[in-house]
Amino acid sequence: MPNLDIASSIAEWAGRYRGDMSPTIEREARRSLVDTASCMFGGRTTAVSALAEKAISLESGEGAVSIVGGGMLSVGGAAFLNGVRSHALDFDDYEFVGSTHPSAPILAALLAVGFRDGLTVGDILRAWTVGYEVIVRLGESLGFGHYLSGWHSTSTLGPIAAAAACAHAMDLPSERIAAAMNMGSSVSAGLQHQFGTDMKVAHVGLAARGGVFAAQYARVGAVAASGLVWDGPLGFLANFGTPTSPGTRAVLATRIIGQGIMDHPVARKSWPSCSYTQRPIEAAIGLRENHQIDPTSIASIAIHSPAPFVRVVSIAEPTTSAEARFSVRYCVARAMLCGVLTPADFEPAALSEPDTRALMLKVSIVPEQVPDDIQDLSPEAPDRLVVTLQSGQRLEKAVAYVRGGPKNPMTDADLTRKAKACDAPAELVGLLAEGALSIPIRSTAIF
Amino acid sequence: MPNLDIASSIAEWAGRYRGDMSPTIEREARRSLVDTASCMFGGRTTAVSALAEKAISLESGEGAVSIVGGGMLSVGGAAFLNGVRSHALDFDDYEFVGSTHPSAPILAALLAVGFRDGLTVGDILRAWTVGYEVIVRLGESLGFGHYLSGWHSTSTLGPIAAAAACAHAMDLPSERIAAAMNMGSSVSAGLQHQFGTDMKVAHVGLAARGGVFAAQYARVGAVAASGLVWDGPLGFLANFGTPTSPGTRAVLATRIIGQGIMDHPVARKSWPSCSYTQRPIEAAIGLRENHQIDPTSIASIAIHSPAPFVRVVSIAEPTTSAEARFSVRYCVARAMLCGVLTPADFEPAALSEPDTRALMLKVSIVPEQVPDDIQDLSPEAPDRLVVTLQSGQRLEKAVAYVRGGPKNPMTDADLTRKAKACDAPAELVGLLAEGALSIPIRSTAIF
Repeated sequence: MPNLDIASSIAEWAGRYRGDMSPTIEREARRSLVDTASCMFGGRTTAVSALAEKAISLESGEGAVSIVGGGMLSVGGAAFLNGVRSHALDFDDYEFVGSTHPSAPILAALLAVGFRDGLTVGDILRAWTVGYEVIVRLGESLGFGHYLSGWHSTSTLGPIAAAAACAHAMDLPSERIAAAMNMGSSVSAGLQHQFGTDMKVAHVGLAARGGVFAAQYARVGAVAASGLVWDGPLGFLANFGTPTSPGTRAVLATRIIGQGIMDHPVARKSWPSCSYTQRPIEAAIGLRENHQIDPTSIASIAIHSPAPFVRVVSIAEPTTSAEARFSVRYCVARAMLCGVLTPADFEPAALSEPDTRALMLKVSIVPEQVPDDIQDLSPEAPDRLVVTLQSGQRLEKAVAYVRGGPKNPMTDADLTRKAKACDAPAELVGLLAEGALSIPIRSTAIF
Repeated sequence: MPNLDIASSIAEWAGRYRGDMSPTIEREARRSLVDTASCMFGGRTTAVSALAEKAISLESGEGAVSIVGGGMLSVGGAAFLNGVRSHALDFDDYEFVGSTHPSAPILAALLAVGFRDGLTVGDILRAWTVGYEVIVRLGESLGFGHYLSGWHSTSTLGPIAAAAACAHAMDLPSERIAAAMNMGSSVSAGLQHQFGTDMKVAHVGLAARGGVFAAQYARVGAVAASGLVWDGPLGFLANFGTPTSPGTRAVLATRIIGQGIMDHPVARKSWPSCSYTQRPIEAAIGLRENHQIDPTSIASIAIHSPAPFVRVVSIAEPTTSAEARFSVRYCVARAMLCGVLTPADFEPAALSEPDTRALMLKVSIVPEQVPDDIQDLSPEAPDRLVVTLQSGQRLEKAVAYVRGGPKNPMTDADLTRKAKACDAPAELVGLLAEGALSIPIRSTAIF
């Protein structure tokens, strides 16, 4: 498709993509739906969800669309609050090539539109794959430099993906799916400086609502710009990319549109904290188990971590739940003490627990330089933990492949355990099994 | 205030700024309110307003807040549609230092919040000056390079200004006004590639709604990042500015916060088209009047215009109202034929009118190089029109100072005429006179 821009190319595929998903892709979509909706249930009781609900209710008023986990708002409001809840614990899935949380904005938007329009579980699964295709292909086009420049990729790429997914779910023709994507780029916003604050979580909600708006504006026939939005000299790539961004043309020339999930598998989280804390946490739990470490015997812990990740998770002494999710020191200390991390480990009681505070003070971070062209969470740039005991003994563990990632995926049993930890209903877990595609989502007990 | 970031500095001033405005500033605020609300009335009957109303109603549902020009939505929805209507004709005010349309997003948001909260005309005027301060100080910090990079400054800076204005109108303390601004930066979005489309107009609505959301989220106590958002190495300035951006520190060191309107007076529009068409239109009307040109006697018209402006207004053969506002060829041809431009001159009937099409084909554009450090619409880089008649006679006119700008401001009589052309109610024009500050805006016939 040499003469089409990236939005038109993906839209051209999405417009034709109305039949069956392949079994592999359907399975990935199911797992993402169950995993993300679990996070929405887990997130509904957080303080940030309550704040965001209050703010959006005051701004956006009432509505007839159910929010996952309870409550009703307009479709845009429900998309927003679904997004906030899905990301409130930072427990939702992610992917490496775009450095985004893909399912949170996409499914937050889709479930709101789906409830209103009576879409089926199958419709949602298929539309998720459209949104996922968008987010990874744009991520490939931009390269890791986009994230390294300080953009919160989830809220820059999320609205475009959510717009495409919703436009597809609304059964719009290709040209209108492309228009929705072009409009979604006008909602691309948000910097990483908001990590560790209530605003970071709102980014995901705003991305979801922005995607719904774009799809809705495309649906009523509004006109947007096209080709040059993406790769013109002053376009999206020029402003959100870097001089080394591969560019959309490279992606279109070398990739098969529709295979994004295969090229870039979803990573799912075992622990409710920033993705850059996951490998150090794994290392801590691994050392603790293998060496049966008594935490009181620890003299010091050094986290050797790639410098770009350290920048994101360097909050030294977290005072809020949100900050703790971006404090690798806290996460490692707590994991070393508990051997596991659950949402409760980020509540105020855990944060102020004396043994955790004491151990955290023994944790230092050593940023390691990595090549400029490194991929996000690449195994070539592992995280490494060095624990020195009071006895002088030195224990060390490197983790190159993150748990939940493609080389070490979560099983259905893991997802079931996670759903339970999030207090999600059993019906949701049931969706892991085949079938149920034709059920309208508003008629299940879940949504 | 050397230790405060720009948001905190402006918020510190705004938190104290609760008393009387100076008469000069109040007068500017009044004129902006009347001018912008006139544009909202003028914009309500446009096709883009109808599309946007349909989309936002489907996304955002019903509400109890009046929209200027008619209809009701939620406060966020009303802010959105006020914004769309205020900008639908591209007739609303602008300013040079940030290259934005300041009043459209600020007043769109304020009038929605004001209607809900029973604010007075005086509250709205004062809060507008807060928003204006924000937009010009951020504009100074970024420099013209921000706009030249392809960003639609109105929708990158507008949400931050609208957030500050709404937070001030909500009577929030300084710290919360700063939080609202920091959150507003998470809604900064939109590229100029959307100029000439329905999405450009939606940008203004989204900026207004984003500002309302940010203020509302700040009001309920949500936490946002602060200082580094603005001038950190990966912050707002780094991502939205250029290497030659003056920076926020320069602005804080050399400017008196609260004097933004004096430093950078508002420009108001005589003609409902892009600001870069205004000087060529003036030149055409001037030549036509001074030389009593018979349009049929014209052999050719050359528009010599600074290259950065040409890029924005180069739509050669417009086919829609939105495109015509960004076609300097169309605007000049039509102005030469009619001697005046009104909203009707951008309707389909005018666009397809044979004499206009014929004359437009005789218009060419000559981009002129300008220094890199030029200011937006600087008199040092004028627009120049060269008309060659069939007789061989050559007529020429340069316009350095745009009509409606500080050197050639619109009078109250001009604003009254414009309000009538926009079919605005007489009560609105009455606000140009002193008084009426204590009237709640929801009790007037206007809003």
